[in-house]
Amino acid sequence: MEFDALKFENDKLIFIDQTKLPDEEVYISTDNYERIAEAIERLEIRGAPLIGIAALYGLALSIKTSINNFENAYSRLKRTRPTAVNLFTALESAKEFFYSSSSNKNYSALLEFARKFHREDIEYCNQIAKNGCDYISTRFNKPVRVITHCNTGSLATGGVGTAFGVILELFKRNLIEIVYACEARPLLQGLRLTSFELKKNGIPYKIITDSTASFLMQKNMIDFVIVGADRIASNGDVANKIGTYSLAVNSRYHSIPFYVAAPSTSIDKRITSGNQIVIEERSPDELVYFGNKKLISLKSKQSTLLLILLLMNLLVVIITEEKVFNPPLIFQNDKGF
Amino acid sequence: MEFDALKFENDKLIFIDQTKLPDEEVYISTDNYERIAEAIERLEIRGAPLIGIAALYGLALSIKTSINNFENAYSRLKRTRPTAVNLFTALESAKEFFYSSSSNKNYSALLEFARKFHREDIEYCNQIAKNGCDYISTRFNKPVRVITHCNTGSLATGGVGTAFGVILELFKRNLIEIVYACEARPLLQGLRLTSFELKKNGIPYKIITDSTASFLMQKNMIDFVIVGADRIASNGDVANKIGTYSLAVNSRYHSIPFYVAAPSTSIDKRITSGNQIVIEERSPDELVYFGNKKLISLKSKQSTLLLILLLMNLLVVIITEEKVFNPPLIFQNDKGF
Repeated sequence: MEFDALKFENDKLIFIDQTKLPDEEVYISTDNYERIAEAIERLEIRGAPLIGIAALYGLALSIKTSINNFENAYSRLKRTRPTAVNLFTALESAKEFFYSSSSNKNYSALLEFARKFHREDIEYCNQIAKNGCDYISTRFNKPVRVITHCNTGSLATGGVGTAFGVILELFKRNLIEIVYACEARPLLQGLRLTSFELKKNGIPYKIITDSTASFLMQKNMIDFVIVGADRIASNGDVANKIGTYSLAVNSRYHSIPFYVAAPSTSIDKRITSGNQIVIEERSPDELVYFGNKKLISLKSKQSTLLLILLLMNLLVVIITEEKVFNPPLIFQNDKGF
Repeated sequence: MEFDALKFENDKLIFIDQTKLPDEEVYISTDNYERIAEAIERLEIRGAPLIGIAALYGLALSIKTSINNFENAYSRLKRTRPTAVNLFTALESAKEFFYSSSSNKNYSALLEFARKFHREDIEYCNQIAKNGCDYISTRFNKPVRVITHCNTGSLATGGVGTAFGVILELFKRNLIEIVYACEARPLLQGLRLTSFELKKNGIPYKIITDSTASFLMQKNMIDFVIVGADRIASNGDVANKIGTYSLAVNSRYHSIPFYVAAPSTSIDKRITSGNQIVIEERSPDELVYFGNKKLISLKSKQSTLLLILLLMNLLVVIITEEKVFNPPLIFQNDKGF
């Protein structure tokens, strides 16, 4: 990797300000948990796994001077992103650890807890990358042409990423011809962040508008599609960024393999179908703002954006750190983990 | 219609400056052909049929003071958009008219030629709208939910438009529940122009990111898709804005009718397949600029945009001013026109 989205060194958290990417590469160094909370709020640090890691380092730093700061820091960090499940889970596990023994109630113990959490995420990513690369490399006898959607690399995770990690591992083994990264409207994570990750790692790529993907498939220019996942139901339905479903339909129509790379913790066995996953309808502003730049005024209330997570179960292959799951996917009966 | 994209009154061309839409509705009035040429160059006037009409009015105005201006004006107007076939055809037909008889070599004769050309375009649009509406209305017994892509209304044509004209006619007959207009990346004609046309006509609508369309189809929220066409090959392959092909694949997968509305002049019988249509690969700038607003800096030459016209022959129905063509579409054997 040519950069660190986030690292902890000399009692400080150093992170890249993602709101300035790809135009500027600005690193911020802080030992102040309030500054870390602000960074999460302002999306300077983003990506579900990454904000969990940042929050745990913030929590540890909060008690460096006084153990009494714990509860305030805990509440403050939890408020930063009201819908981020990973963030809550991470903070709750740290709180449980903190109160479970008096020997845990100090800076170095809590810091080691954060470091371990971070190392585990890195290890998940590495294992997903290896599993995905091993699986995919046996299926193609030449460097591959890949479509990916949204941002799944080190800007979103503690390690090399999920789908991006697989791509990076393929690249290291000289198995990548080109990566087509969908821009990922409306928030353009592909154009802004995935392009940065690809460039930093020297991987050949082109950015495409989301709807260009199907054209490339028609022209036999694509070997497979690989994406991450927000959540996977026990029947194999995958919820992911808007645009994923259209890619899956197009892949199926053109008989192109579709891979989903995610940690096994993303498989939610409590939900039996994607229909139980709540679909997010977001602000129309996301359609017309780019960062703080407004593209046009949308005065009409009639114009609203449907930004939604996508569900599907279209014969996808799911790659986790534990194993690769082939369809049909029925996780509740699976004994593998 | 609640506005005129272009009209000719009191020896002046009055047009809406499309570069300012939808934020500002600015009308420009001129009798200067040079100003009209600039308007076409700057995309203040755009849309293949509309620029042809504007150019003919400009050509007529050029000889109002002196017939000797004809050749200069002809060359100037022809240079405005180097790849616009409609523009060349219109200007060439006017030139032929001008030189074919001495009685044609005056302002009022050339103006009447332009007016006739404009009236014919309006009539094409009206007839496409009527044919499309008649055909579609027999197939649904309730107001419909429609997806359209890119801009096909009065901002692109001399009349009510092609696909948009059909939508407008359905709306007038109370047969529209809602129109979902794709934003149409990269140039956002849907977000900027179609939204303006829909709003002006009081048609209920939502703007969606291009990739949202397939999700709405999955949720049974769409009755049909209707788009325009840049060009149609004799085997029925349609070339249209990037995104059209993905919509067609998704429509087929979800068993949703897909209609193409275009004047019969768009059917190019000289080409037997879409593969003979040259695909346009455009500047990467189009991905990162919005009007004169730059979204991000793309320094890497590795990042380039593939903006391409789309080909397909996916059991589409083609609606022209003459008739409605059902698949299989083989126009060279058709005796209808």
